[in-house]
Amino acid sequence: MSIIAAVSTAKRGRGRPRREGADEEILAVARTMLSEGGYGELTVDGVAERAGVAKTTVYRRWPSRGALIAALIPPPGAYASAEAALHDVQSLLAPLAGASGDAEVLGVIRAILRSRRPALVEVVGDETRADELLGAVWMKLFVTS
Amino acid sequence: MSIIAAVSTAKRGRGRPRREGADEEILAVARTMLSEGGYGELTVDGVAERAGVAKTTVYRRWPSRGALIAALIPPPGAYASAEAALHDVQSLLAPLAGASGDAEVLGVIRAILRSRRPALVEVVGDETRADELLGAVWMKLFVTS
Repeated sequence: MSIIAAVSTAKRGRGRPRREGADEEILAVARTMLSEGGYGELTVDGVAERAGVAKTTVYRRWPSRGALIAALIPPPGAYASAEAALHDVQSLLAPLAGASGDAEVLGVIRAILRSRRPALVEVVGDETRADELLGAVWMKLFVTS
Repeated sequence: MSIIAAVSTAKRGRGRPRREGADEEILAVARTMLSEGGYGELTVDGVAERAGVAKTTVYRRWPSRGALIAALIPPPGAYASAEAALHDVQSLLAPLAGASGDAEVLGVIRAILRSRRPALVEVVGDETRADELLGAVWMKLFVTS
């Protein structure tokens, strides 16, 4: 590394230097924190601290807390049954219940439901029925409880 | 009015003096603005301006924009049919679609669904079915559109 490059790197910011594999580590930490404390506990500051990286490292990759949460949604697989699909949706949505005052939570709920809907439509063979079933899961977690 | 009372009133704030009937007028203005421009256009500043009252007059009665919106939800009546109930819910929720980045919107959605659910349960005679039907309206407005 040239002296100029070294100085430029040192000047880049007050945060710790970026590490290889940090993205995966950050996501793993965020996933753990989400399952431990729910959506309300999951802050970029907290994730950065626990992953041992600078906040800017997190923000560079995921520009908002909502984007970080959305990145935690695992890709959907094919479901063996409607029950399996709804169980999956319920477990993904549950950590968000109780965070209704958060501006980002509705976007995350929507991202989860959209990501699971096609596979559920596949299993039940009917879009309206799939929306009724997904909607009922939403009602139970966010409206009637 | 004594001189002391007059000075005290004048000192109370920079806003215009409170008027009788202001509450109803504020709600009427807010209702009009909601139907004209949707949730995103409905600000306390805008409502106060158009109703010709001080912002503090609005905030004194409704401490947040969410509280103001919640006050606009008309009380539910009995429904002749499930279709009538769902049509009502849809028309109440529709102005909120597209405001997902707003921290208060989820609370308002929830207040609307909670206020209509008992009357729908009454018509369809089944809680699960009522939640499926309400949930499907939510899915259509906030997830699949």
